[in-house]
Amino acid sequence: MTRTSQAELRQLVAEVIRMGGLAEAQVVDAVDAVVRRDVPLAQALIVRDLRLDSLQAEVERRALDLIGRHRPDEADLRRAISTLKLAMNLERCGDLARNIAKRSLVLSAGEPLLPLTGGIERMGRLVSARLREVLDAYAAGEVEPALDVWRRDGEVDEHYESLFRELLALMATRPDLVAAGAHLLFVAKNLERIGDHATNIAEILHFQMTGQELIGERPKVGVSLDGVETEATPS
Amino acid sequence: MTRTSQAELRQLVAEVIRMGGLAEAQVVDAVDAVVRRDVPLAQALIVRDLRLDSLQAEVERRALDLIGRHRPDEADLRRAISTLKLAMNLERCGDLARNIAKRSLVLSAGEPLLPLTGGIERMGRLVSARLREVLDAYAAGEVEPALDVWRRDGEVDEHYESLFRELLALMATRPDLVAAGAHLLFVAKNLERIGDHATNIAEILHFQMTGQELIGERPKVGVSLDGVETEATPS
Repeated sequence: MTRTSQAELRQLVAEVIRMGGLAEAQVVDAVDAVVRRDVPLAQALIVRDLRLDSLQAEVERRALDLIGRHRPDEADLRRAISTLKLAMNLERCGDLARNIAKRSLVLSAGEPLLPLTGGIERMGRLVSARLREVLDAYAAGEVEPALDVWRRDGEVDEHYESLFRELLALMATRPDLVAAGAHLLFVAKNLERIGDHATNIAEILHFQMTGQELIGERPKVGVSLDGVETEATPS
Repeated sequence: MTRTSQAELRQLVAEVIRMGGLAEAQVVDAVDAVVRRDVPLAQALIVRDLRLDSLQAEVERRALDLIGRHRPDEADLRRAISTLKLAMNLERCGDLARNIAKRSLVLSAGEPLLPLTGGIERMGRLVSARLREVLDAYAAGEVEPALDVWRRDGEVDEHYESLFRELLALMATRPDLVAAGAHLLFVAKNLERIGDHATNIAEILHFQMTGQELIGERPKVGVSLDGVETEATPS
């Protein structure tokens, strides 16, 4: 591509990196909204999610325009397509964070579920760290840290499984908390899915930087204890 | 593009249509596996899901190759990028169907939950019909039936909400069924998300065929009764 189109591609990558920063902040805030029962924070991030939706549309429009106007070589085409795919994954992380925030509004109206929200807080910290690590790898153009995120996919699942068990135990003993427990089940599942998006992003980066698919099953922690593995596990 | 590359694009579209047929069959089988407690069917579709994963990788490889080798005009570029996005959405539908099948294995080991699986069956029929309609619209290259699927997004949510309420009521009165109820909650949520993918596909087709984003919120049925809207709602 020309130097102009190289500059356009760099701008596009920078836009995706900005989008990643916003998505990561939305995840952190969503977990805080659940843990601190912070209704104004939840309401603010629900509104802010619109920004991620419009950023995704903008990245997509610019990536298609760039691919269409210039003839990128194989490596630049992979970089351009990666921006499309990363934007899709980041927009989905934003949707999941917004959904957690909406559930936090329901949970904040009920009684605190302290030991359980402690588990949500730990899982949220782990998941947002994964997202930050893989986005840093993208910004730095380094494949190794992305591979490290990919290899540690199973740690998030372990947190999810233990929360799943604790929540079922609560719901079985406190019928009055079944609805709150169900919302926390989905909060935990959404966090697990955000972790899967971080792993997806690691796979996209590996393909972008090497032209090779990551071969084989994502590292798993044996059979998951709720009898199923996460939806996003590729095989 | 040359006539050769036009032929390649048609083959790619045909590949995505085949992938759609397989994804739709996986969803139908997953619901049958839950409803009929059919363990061999569940096991067979879990294995078959690998085929969707490899088809997606193949579509992606061929689409990038086509975009890279030829210079598609704006409309053909949109068609080529649509095959990428549809393949992603269909692969996710397959993952969700596989997850339903895995949960059906857990559920089949417990006692039947007949009235509830009846609701799952109705929701499953609705969701697989949506998927079939939007894939038919893609095969026919018609935008209107895709728009119709997009407009009726809310119907799936209504089924999900009523199942959600029934399941919470069951779990509050039958502590021994809390685990089974939780798995059915996720089965219902997975079906709702497959419906969201059908709506995503409708939006992708609209953009491919018109070059315009579908404006505005997806039609919703008021505030959903579990206090949150579906994760994939774009705003």
